Amino acid sequence: MAKGLNRILLIGTVTQTPEMRYTPGGLAVLEVTVAGNDRVTTETGEERELAWYHRVKMFGRYAEMLVEQLTAGTPVLVDGRLDYRSWEAEGGRRSAVDVRVDRIEVLDRADKGDEQTVSDARGQERLREGLNEVVLIGNLTRDPELRYTPQGTAVIRIGLAVNERYVSRGSEQEKTHFFDVQAWRELAEWAAGLKKGGGLFVMGRLVNDSWTTQTGERRFTTRVEANRLERLARGPGRSGGTGAPAKQAQTGGVDIDEGLEDFPPEEDLPF
Amino acid sequence: MAKGLNRILLIGTVTQTPEMRYTPGGLAVLEVTVAGNDRVTTETGEERELAWYHRVKMFGRYAEMLVEQLTAGTPVLVDGRLDYRSWEAEGGRRSAVDVRVDRIEVLDRADKGDEQTVSDARGQERLREGLNEVVLIGNLTRDPELRYTPQGTAVIRIGLAVNERYVSRGSEQEKTHFFDVQAWRELAEWAAGLKKGGGLFVMGRLVNDSWTTQTGERRFTTRVEANRLERLARGPGRSGGTGAPAKQAQTGGVDIDEGLEDFPPEEDLPF
Repeated sequence: MAKGLNRILLIGTVTQTPEMRYTPGGLAVLEVTVAGNDRVTTETGEERELAWYHRVKMFGRYAEMLVEQLTAGTPVLVDGRLDYRSWEAEGGRRSAVDVRVDRIEVLDRADKGDEQTVSDARGQERLREGLNEVVLIGNLTRDPELRYTPQGTAVIRIGLAVNERYVSRGSEQEKTHFFDVQAWRELAEWAAGLKKGGGLFVMGRLVNDSWTTQTGERRFTTRVEANRLERLARGPGRSGGTGAPAKQAQTGGVDIDEGLEDFPPEEDLPF
Repeated sequence: MAKGLNRILLIGTVTQTPEMRYTPGGLAVLEVTVAGNDRVTTETGEERELAWYHRVKMFGRYAEMLVEQLTAGTPVLVDGRLDYRSWEAEGGRRSAVDVRVDRIEVLDRADKGDEQTVSDARGQERLREGLNEVVLIGNLTRDPELRYTPQGTAVIRIGLAVNERYVSRGSEQEKTHFFDVQAWRELAEWAAGLKKGGGLFVMGRLVNDSWTTQTGERRFTTRVEANRLERLARGPGRSGGTGAPAKQAQTGGVDIDEGLEDFPPEEDLPF
């Protein structure tokens, strides 16, 4: 399994003054929603603004240091990682993708004028000129399947497993994150040639999506809309040796099928 | 001084099969030039392709692992940091900016077609659809001065000091990198309000530039062309306390004027 790369940069505004929470173990947890607009050029060359709202999490002393500053409307830069969580719920397994903060900086945009935010239906301020960039390296969890919207636009969904290594209590731990990546048009058609297990570089935006299931339930998801994809070569020198590397070396000890029976939840697909 | 952030992502082709060098101490050093084209939209809405060639450095075991793979024409993804070096030379102090690799991946672009590279005058292959993105956080080394080209286009040059902390032989070291950031038009006009010492977020491209000095010498430089700038707030909570933080805390122990008498070399300005 390719060594994971997992980064997100966001510039947006804090939508609501947050409240600090503490875990039963006493760890401070601060969650804020950061919101902005992406400016996207459509197929027909029009510029459209697309809103995004992402949940951003900080922990411990860093959270305590920042809680006073992150009031509603504050413009911030977030440098972090996508974080995948999953849990059992009524009706099956659910998952969510949030942003885990490595660093957050309050921005001084006082001289950018009054028109820099737009007020949404709930009265929350959203930054007009948001920044929203995701960079990932991971492995495909399955062969992706090219589909077409009713209007005939090519679209593909890619399940990406991104591993993370970290040291906890002196021993090296490994976690695998599962992200849903979507690509459109020429990029989708190219991606139809990708295969399960292959290493992939993804650059894109983190977007919110919602749809109604066949049973009438409203569902929300957070996914990456790719604007660039690159296939990694399976170089023999990756592990520093020659010949066929052991399975352990290839996968980094993680089975990319693990927990994937329902990722992404195909039955919920909006098209 | 703001905690430094220093990242570059490049996708391009290796221009020449490199040769491994060793320092007198026996450390392997591998330098390759990675080249690509940026696609840039000009003021008049035209798309232009701008070539870049950047020197990319790897060290030690990582260099030894990769030397066989990085042959001329190989497409690669580079994840690294900008690295500033300076030295004494005839006629004064000189400096250069290279890329220090954290990670390099060989890309498999076999199915992207024959037109993916362009051959330059030296017969080296340069990737057409390059990726070239720099993200920095640092502090301004001086008040920037707005200028105008003979055609009347606003342009500004910003000296940015970016600190880096690392552990060497068990003790924490600090290095300050000095980068030359350039911005144009509205962004330049906005940046004219920035002040020496202020914290700044920069997003842009790493470009090559050359010009002829008044004494007829040809000079080359590597700088960042900004497409986004954000001023960091000087939050009282940055250092976790209240009231005026000590100078040591503000600057991180680094004097941003240090070594800056000739940065950037104003006498060499092409305009």
